[in-house]
Amino acid sequence: MCGIIGVFNHKKAAELAMLGLFAEQHRGQESCGMAVNNGRIFNLHKKMGLVKSVFTPEVLSKLDGEIAIGHVRYPTRGSSTATNSQPHIVETLSGPNYALASNGDIVNYHEIRRQLEEKGVYFKSTNDGELILKYIIYHVEYEKKSIPESIRLLMKNVRGAFSTVLATRNEMYCFRDPLAIRPMVFGEFEDGSFVVASESCALDILHPKKIYEMEPAEIVIVNDSGVKRIHNDQSKFVSQTTPKHCIFEHVYFSRPDSIDFDEAVYQVRENIGRELAKLDNFTPDAVVPVPDSANFIATGYAKEKNIPYEMGLIRNHYVGRTFIKPEQTIRDESVKQKFNVLPGFFKGKSIVLVDDSIVRGTTLRKIIFMIKEAGAKEVHMRIGSPAVKFSCYYGIDTPNRDKLIANKKKIAEIRDFIGADSLRYLPIENLKKTVSKPDDFCDACFTGNYPLEF
Amino acid sequence: MCGIIGVFNHKKAAELAMLGLFAEQHRGQESCGMAVNNGRIFNLHKKMGLVKSVFTPEVLSKLDGEIAIGHVRYPTRGSSTATNSQPHIVETLSGPNYALASNGDIVNYHEIRRQLEEKGVYFKSTNDGELILKYIIYHVEYEKKSIPESIRLLMKNVRGAFSTVLATRNEMYCFRDPLAIRPMVFGEFEDGSFVVASESCALDILHPKKIYEMEPAEIVIVNDSGVKRIHNDQSKFVSQTTPKHCIFEHVYFSRPDSIDFDEAVYQVRENIGRELAKLDNFTPDAVVPVPDSANFIATGYAKEKNIPYEMGLIRNHYVGRTFIKPEQTIRDESVKQKFNVLPGFFKGKSIVLVDDSIVRGTTLRKIIFMIKEAGAKEVHMRIGSPAVKFSCYYGIDTPNRDKLIANKKKIAEIRDFIGADSLRYLPIENLKKTVSKPDDFCDACFTGNYPLEF
Amino acid sequence: MCGIIGVFNHKKAAELAMLGLFAEQHRGQESCGMAVNNGRIFNLHKKMGLVKSVFTPEVLSKLDGEIAIGHVRYPTRGSSTATNSQPHIVETLSGPNYALASNGDIVNYHEIRRQLEEKGVYFKSTNDGELILKYIIYHVEYEKKSIPESIRLLMKNVRGAFSTVLATRNEMYCFRDPLAIRPMVFGEFEDGSFVVASESCALDILHPKKIYEMEPAEIVIVNDSGVKRIHNDQSKFVSQTTPKHCIFEHVYFSRPDSIDFDEAVYQVRENIGRELAKLDNFTPDAVVPVPDSANFIATGYAKEKNIPYEMGLIRNHYVGRTFIKPEQTIRDESVKQKFNVLPGFFKGKSIVLVDDSIVRGTTLRKIIFMIKEAGAKEVHMRIGSPAVKFSCYYGIDTPNRDKLIANKKKIAEIRDFIGADSLRYLPIENLKKTVSKPDDFCDACFTGNYPLEF
Amino acid sequence: MCGIIGVFNHKKAAELAMLGLFAEQHRGQESCGMAVNNGRIFNLHKKMGLVKSVFTPEVLSKLDGEIAIGHVRYPTRGSSTATNSQPHIVETLSGPNYALASNGDIVNYHEIRRQLEEKGVYFKSTNDGELILKYIIYHVEYEKKSIPESIRLLMKNVRGAFSTVLATRNEMYCFRDPLAIRPMVFGEFEDGSFVVASESCALDILHPKKIYEMEPAEIVIVNDSGVKRIHNDQSKFVSQTTPKHCIFEHVYFSRPDSIDFDEAVYQVRENIGRELAKLDNFTPDAVVPVPDSANFIATGYAKEKNIPYEMGLIRNHYVGRTFIKPEQTIRDESVKQKFNVLPGFFKGKSIVLVDDSIVRGTTLRKIIFMIKEAGAKEVHMRIGSPAVKFSCYYGIDTPNRDKLIANKKKIAEIRDFIGADSLRYLPIENLKKTVSKPDDFCDACFTGNYPLEF
Repeated sequence: MCGIIGVFNHKKAAELAMLGLFAEQHRGQESCGMAVNNGRIFNLHKKMGLVKSVFTPEVLSKLDGEIAIGHVRYPTRGSSTATNSQPHIVETLSGPNYALASNGDIVNYHEIRRQLEEKGVYFKSTNDGELILKYIIYHVEYEKKSIPESIRLLMKNVRGAFSTVLATRNEMYCFRDPLAIRPMVFGEFEDGSFVVASESCALDILHPKKIYEMEPAEIVIVNDSGVKRIHNDQSKFVSQTTPKHCIFEHVYFSRPDSIDFDEAVYQVRENIGRELAKLDNFTPDAVVPVPDSANFIATGYAKEKNIPYEMGLIRNHYVGRTFIKPEQTIRDESVKQKFNVLPGFFKGKSIVLVDDSIVRGTTLRKIIFMIKEAGAKEVHMRIGSPAVKFSCYYGIDTPNRDKLIANKKKIAEIRDFIGADSLRYLPIENLKKTVSKPDDFCDACFTGNYPLEF
Repeated sequence: MCGIIGVFNHKKAAELAMLGLFAEQHRGQESCGMAVNNGRIFNLHKKMGLVKSVFTPEVLSKLDGEIAIGHVRYPTRGSSTATNSQPHIVETLSGPNYALASNGDIVNYHEIRRQLEEKGVYFKSTNDGELILKYIIYHVEYEKKSIPESIRLLMKNVRGAFSTVLATRNEMYCFRDPLAIRPMVFGEFEDGSFVVASESCALDILHPKKIYEMEPAEIVIVNDSGVKRIHNDQSKFVSQTTPKHCIFEHVYFSRPDSIDFDEAVYQVRENIGRELAKLDNFTPDAVVPVPDSANFIATGYAKEKNIPYEMGLIRNHYVGRTFIKPEQTIRDESVKQKFNVLPGFFKGKSIVLVDDSIVRGTTLRKIIFMIKEAGAKEVHMRIGSPAVKFSCYYGIDTPNRDKLIANKKKIAEIRDFIGADSLRYLPIENLKKTVSKPDDFCDACFTGNYPLEF
Repeated sequence: MCGIIGVFNHKKAAELAMLGLFAEQHRGQESCGMAVNNGRIFNLHKKMGLVKSVFTPEVLSKLDGEIAIGHVRYPTRGSSTATNSQPHIVETLSGPNYALASNGDIVNYHEIRRQLEEKGVYFKSTNDGELILKYIIYHVEYEKKSIPESIRLLMKNVRGAFSTVLATRNEMYCFRDPLAIRPMVFGEFEDGSFVVASESCALDILHPKKIYEMEPAEIVIVNDSGVKRIHNDQSKFVSQTTPKHCIFEHVYFSRPDSIDFDEAVYQVRENIGRELAKLDNFTPDAVVPVPDSANFIATGYAKEKNIPYEMGLIRNHYVGRTFIKPEQTIRDESVKQKFNVLPGFFKGKSIVLVDDSIVRGTTLRKIIFMIKEAGAKEVHMRIGSPAVKFSCYYGIDTPNRDKLIANKKKIAEIRDFIGADSLRYLPIENLKKTVSKPDDFCDACFTGNYPLEF
Repeated sequence: MCGIIGVFNHKKAAELAMLGLFAEQHRGQESCGMAVNNGRIFNLHKKMGLVKSVFTPEVLSKLDGEIAIGHVRYPTRGSSTATNSQPHIVETLSGPNYALASNGDIVNYHEIRRQLEEKGVYFKSTNDGELILKYIIYHVEYEKKSIPESIRLLMKNVRGAFSTVLATRNEMYCFRDPLAIRPMVFGEFEDGSFVVASESCALDILHPKKIYEMEPAEIVIVNDSGVKRIHNDQSKFVSQTTPKHCIFEHVYFSRPDSIDFDEAVYQVRENIGRELAKLDNFTPDAVVPVPDSANFIATGYAKEKNIPYEMGLIRNHYVGRTFIKPEQTIRDESVKQKFNVLPGFFKGKSIVLVDDSIVRGTTLRKIIFMIKEAGAKEVHMRIGSPAVKFSCYYGIDTPNRDKLIANKKKIAEIRDFIGADSLRYLPIENLKKTVSKPDDFCDACFTGNYPLEF
């Protein structure tokens, strides 16, 4: 999980990129970075930390230029270092002339890397973004291909999810994998600037004239002549005939105010809530979300049932760089650092509690314990997606399959483990009803139907 | 605005204090600090930044001891330096033996400081907490009074709001000004430890056996013999016969999951929303809060009117150390860094927008502009409190009177300035209905009836 | 080994103190510090590192005031921390009002510390300077003695070497132990300022009208009324009737351009060289010093014999914060980082090599090996002092007795160990001839005749 | 003025390079740097500061590899930044694969840089070392020349002084400009390693089997096959038929224990002293050097005249990062921070004071004032070189011609300015007598006979 931004032809490119990254902060809080072209070379600044802490006014004032690309990165299992963070740049005798940021993951990373290393290419990190960049630049510099040709070679040979922006001294190339797995949009502006981002919420701040969803395998070239969209036929690269967008972007990852894959995220979530409500043939005293990811699932449920939406759980939004695990001498209540109950609220109530998904179930177990301790009569747990049983290889950091609770316990056992009075997942067929083009989505984490071999 | 914490008789006192401060982070994000007694002296750590950034596991591991007091501080107009942050400690030949944290403000600060300086007392900061500490210790060390006597002298001579905790090597003194202006609670625990805090939400994480509201002018002494509550008759110190709690704690400052002044904050806020709804003789399509401060005002309104509660505005919760003002070349949309509209949501709707108060009105103006731009037909602005016309001298950082919009414009002018179709403040008599003991509250910021001269 | 400085009544007190410390840098390179009184309180800055690195113009510009005391500290066996470095300050309700710097060591440190701790005094360090400061201030603040009375109590009860300067907000007290073990001088200046220092070289930079050697047990008080010298009869405090200056200051520690104990250091060293020469009944090709400590011993020898003084060994004066021990894969030539031979110089020559003393003998062994390897025919080693057989308890960091080579080997064995063709120490009776008052010196490290019990 | 080091085929290459740089610290104290090849790429570490401060054991432990090159840099008029410091590296798709360090200066820098920039080469600094590196690598990578061919192109087209070491992943190239202006030596070792350095003192620490002076225009290639010396005929590149070594290396810059241009530096300096003595037909009481640069000039003078060598001036060797100019309120005695007189020494004496050269004369004026103030009867100033009247363009940081005192004043005026009783420079014909091959030296700073046009 990561977020990208690219800004072209704006006098305050670094500042715009910062605002875009800040809007995408939910896609990655571990590190962030930016490369800005000053008309000659790229200046790169990347660091562990949140966007507003890393890109202070002082830092931004040194990142002069009209082309900027940026990236926010999520804490994954791999090594959490500034080296592995993005953007990446490539340097030659002509200076640091190429910069790239990408969101996604490469399935055949090791195979491609070995091929390039055999040809003398050097890698500084183990990050997929560097692989994409060096794959392209190798073909440009050593094999004398054009950049679009090199990108098409990448689409053919490098399997995986990539929503990518590549900048040179005077051009920007935006492209997306043939299955369009991760979200990616771009906008045109009245002042002639151009912005590409992972999510539309990053463009909203900038008053775009129009926002476009990028097509699968599309390459958008931006330069002084304007914007040129190059459609590439999906069939040249993959066997599928539809996109395979990540359904989890709608369920959990994206911001509710974004439009992903041409559909408003909050509406899909309200649809999920309504679907869940339709399956329940009783009326609870209230529906309560696990905030904030399940908020709109809860409003959907509340509207369908015409019962009150209640914020019975309060979330503490202040998070520092480190999440501190309390010592054992303090009762195991780390969940209380994040969530607290409204005093008196739950007493005697039968409630429906909604969340977007269950991965390990340990946090949910503590939340339900806390709600019961606060006097709730019944807690009916409703999950806005099917049971997660398979790992994702396209950019989401799911744990190994044997850590997923749905692979270790039956539904009744999970219900008992988390301490709920009942538990229901949203079946896959109901989830599909919540989006307008159900076939355009990847559901491998629920079904194991992986669209790309690995 | 600040928050305090005090922990006595716990092996992990520093860690507990950190958890308490984290729960009170909303009361101050500029700096935080902690003084922990290691059985001999206090070790002090205070720094600009958020609780989780300042109190990393490494820092906590060096703050050994069973007595800890802590503080979070709000960015005020005064100098934002670590020196002015709390806790304060006093050092003598016997080492750094006293530590103090306080929430509030002293009305006759300059007069008292001058008196002490004439007696040779030295001040490192311009902070009211240091004044309180040195006032007490001066009387203890040089005038040979007991600590409780010195605190009573303080209550008599030093006018203002103070919810304060003072720790020595083996005792903790908690006390509160005679009008009990700022919130203050303490809890007793099964393991024999004792915790005092500004808000009850800071105690929740610790499973208290019972939480107590401190009385006006009360002194609570905690030592190896246990907890001793010393009731001091309010009439010895002030002319009022009731407390004068800050009503703004309920309206805005406190966390909704806290119980302030023996009343649940979220319920007062829902009452406010219901009062606002009763005054409106029309039914809007939806009620939308300015998140997060007006969330419960909106649910109250929604329930009273039986209309949907809608999260039409999304708030970005990631905030770094610096809030960056965008350059003029970017359209004046700094509010968009913080808030965004749900795409498509407002189109054609007539909505009630609720907020807790209006200070300058500039942010609200931008929010309403954004909502209208998103297609809203009508925006009816409802404010959960009367117009703020007077500065606060008891701990809240309101601007000078001439910066308050309600002193410069009539209601109709404010409505036009913010761009609403209608505007209503909650009248003071309706606000009083939302709490069970209306006479126990200070409403000076609305009425100018200051309970303490200045 | 340490150096002190005190400046009174100078507008640039901090800058003068820095210059004095820089001149005394040879007395301590580990850490340095300064406390400057701004007319109200002391600002303290102390840090690991050399004077010029620690007291940058930026740091000095913040140390405003007309009274400054400073200290340089030698890397001793004890803990090398900023806490143990000097000056020390004492803080009370009136602020940080006392500051002290001292050179020497206290023999009954633990006994005196325990006495003070029983009375409630707190110690932050294990440094003798803090003991002296708190001993005095305890008697001033709690026993209501005057400062001179408290210093006399110290002289009576606290045994050891101390050349000390104590500053208050408007006075400076300089005093010296009854045996005047470490050097201490003060100077008066035409502009009315006053400076006290360990060595006279620190005063030279300031054009003093006159430099005075402090008397044993003397207290010099400097304030707005001028300079007052209080003579205290030595016999009130110790049984000796003469001072017991450290002879090693002349042999090794002090700078050659200082006047210690009313005698020019370089002249005593040339006397030592002449005494050594008189004992040799042969004429070598050249005399070569181990630079820089033995330079003047060598010129004395050269003049007595009328042979050339030759700088056959070159010393590298650039030293960083860390002295790096080379790995074993590099031949054990760490001495070559510090010393190198002149190419071709030693070939076929019979030389006298002089050094001030031998402690362990390991460096000398490597130097002589290097000289022989360079082709020297004969190396006759001459040492400017007797064999060091006893530890010092008055401020010099000698190793334990069992580490001293003279306690483990006979002279002939030492000669063989270091690889010299002959070896002679200067006998104690000859050393005594080099100073004008031989009875005024402590020679315990050679003879074991300790003037103070421990 | 700079110093270089290169180490090939040693397991502790970084540590050896550090020891070599430490020995060459006198050639540059502003910044230092090292690039170490780990078998794949170069890791670069460069920083402002002294060798021992920058290359701590922790830093060295991270610089793994068997090839290392290093550099120390002198504070010049140009910008003092880490970017301008050396070594430089070049990065390509294959990683950072080339590293270079050079001592000297390029006369036609701007012309060559412009040529390369027109071909697309990017420069990060304004340093001549980067120019040399990119000139070579441009021809290797883009023009497909071999490295030796590219170096020869450099020798033909790039005019100036350069003693240079260039490292690749598995080779080291050492080369020197056709006039061999700056010193450069290499050594072979019994363990099979190879070291190249500016001065022989940097090799001494390592027990070389043999030290070689590099020939003018020579290229030495070191790789797994061993050491290959490529002689290039000087006449292919320049019109001169002899080298033009910098005579100032002998007079001032090099360490006395180095052998420069096949001649021992200390012996040339003693020759200079003897030449000066022969010109004086009187016998002073003593000869005193300005330490340390004139020490051997003084011993030469003393031996020729058979008078004592006296260290009447003491130099403070502790220098921090910053040299602090004292405020005007302190008398203008900044020279006293560096030099002090032996107390009593000068009284009534007629002395010869020797120094290596006069640039501006301001320091010398203060030294002589100090000596006279100390009671000297006569001070006869003798300078070990002719008057400096011309700027150096080959690597020495002399000021503009109009700042050189010899261009503004006649000898008698200089004598009066510095306050000496007499003044004599060593005439150029006498200076030439002090070296065995007088025609092999550049004397442009004295005569204006520049061997290379600029």
